[in-house]
Amino acid sequence: MSDEPACSIERSLQILGERWSFLVLREIFRGRHKFAEIQSSLGIASNLLSARFKLLVEAGVLCTQTYQEPGCRPRQSYHLTESGRDLQVVLGALQQWGDRHRPRPSGPSAMRQIRATGRPVHVGFIDEEGGEVPGAEVVAVTNDVIGT
Amino acid sequence: MSDEPACSIERSLQILGERWSFLVLREIFRGRHKFAEIQSSLGIASNLLSARFKLLVEAGVLCTQTYQEPGCRPRQSYHLTESGRDLQVVLGALQQWGDRHRPRPSGPSAMRQIRATGRPVHVGFIDEEGGEVPGAEVVAVTNDVIGT
Repeated sequence: MSDEPACSIERSLQILGERWSFLVLREIFRGRHKFAEIQSSLGIASNLLSARFKLLVEAGVLCTQTYQEPGCRPRQSYHLTESGRDLQVVLGALQQWGDRHRPRPSGPSAMRQIRATGRPVHVGFIDEEGGEVPGAEVVAVTNDVIGT
Repeated sequence: MSDEPACSIERSLQILGERWSFLVLREIFRGRHKFAEIQSSLGIASNLLSARFKLLVEAGVLCTQTYQEPGCRPRQSYHLTESGRDLQVVLGALQQWGDRHRPRPSGPSAMRQIRATGRPVHVGFIDEEGGEVPGAEVVAVTNDVIGT
């Protein structure tokens, strides 16, 4: 039971429910793929980072590729799977909330935009026709089968 | 510096970067407001839950109200502030990802829908005109002032 909670928020947090997981994913979305560069960027202990990578690979969020630099042993680099790429909207939602409610005087550290046009995008609720729905109009309805 | 990271994902995770914070917020979005009912629903130690509430109140995500039941001492109940209500889209994004990539055989535990019509909504990227933008067309652009 505790391995497979009914709530999908909780199942997501089994993988992501820890600050380092989100920050490791942020680094990979930023184009960093090597253990050493992610470790250096985050200032995280290597055993902690290894454990995070292991969990994220086992969960199918990241996959590994082997690369070899001249004079070095072969190493693994880390890449987003389809499931990992789908976390872009989770990170976008976290970023947007931080920019709105934990702002810095110097403004947002990053902006999300449309690749082809540079026009800004935000994260929100969308109906079946692809139109935005204000958060105040959205309710979460628990399926009866669960009850909690 | 470590108190005020440049990245808004990281600033958000200073408040939310821990499994219990998200689950406490989930309970409050579900309409539970009392310490005892949230503690009982989550099965969390009371000192841990107290610490979470304290952080979430200090961060302005939750506010407290005093209530008194017959024969009991006055107690605090916990409610979302505007900043807290804005986390609905973060929880929605986590839930959607869990339903897509960590599904249960019995299906989603909760659905998000439009209050007035019951039509389903999902979380995604939206352009300035209120139209959906596919995630594959979205890039995160780091502001030059930051550089990392």
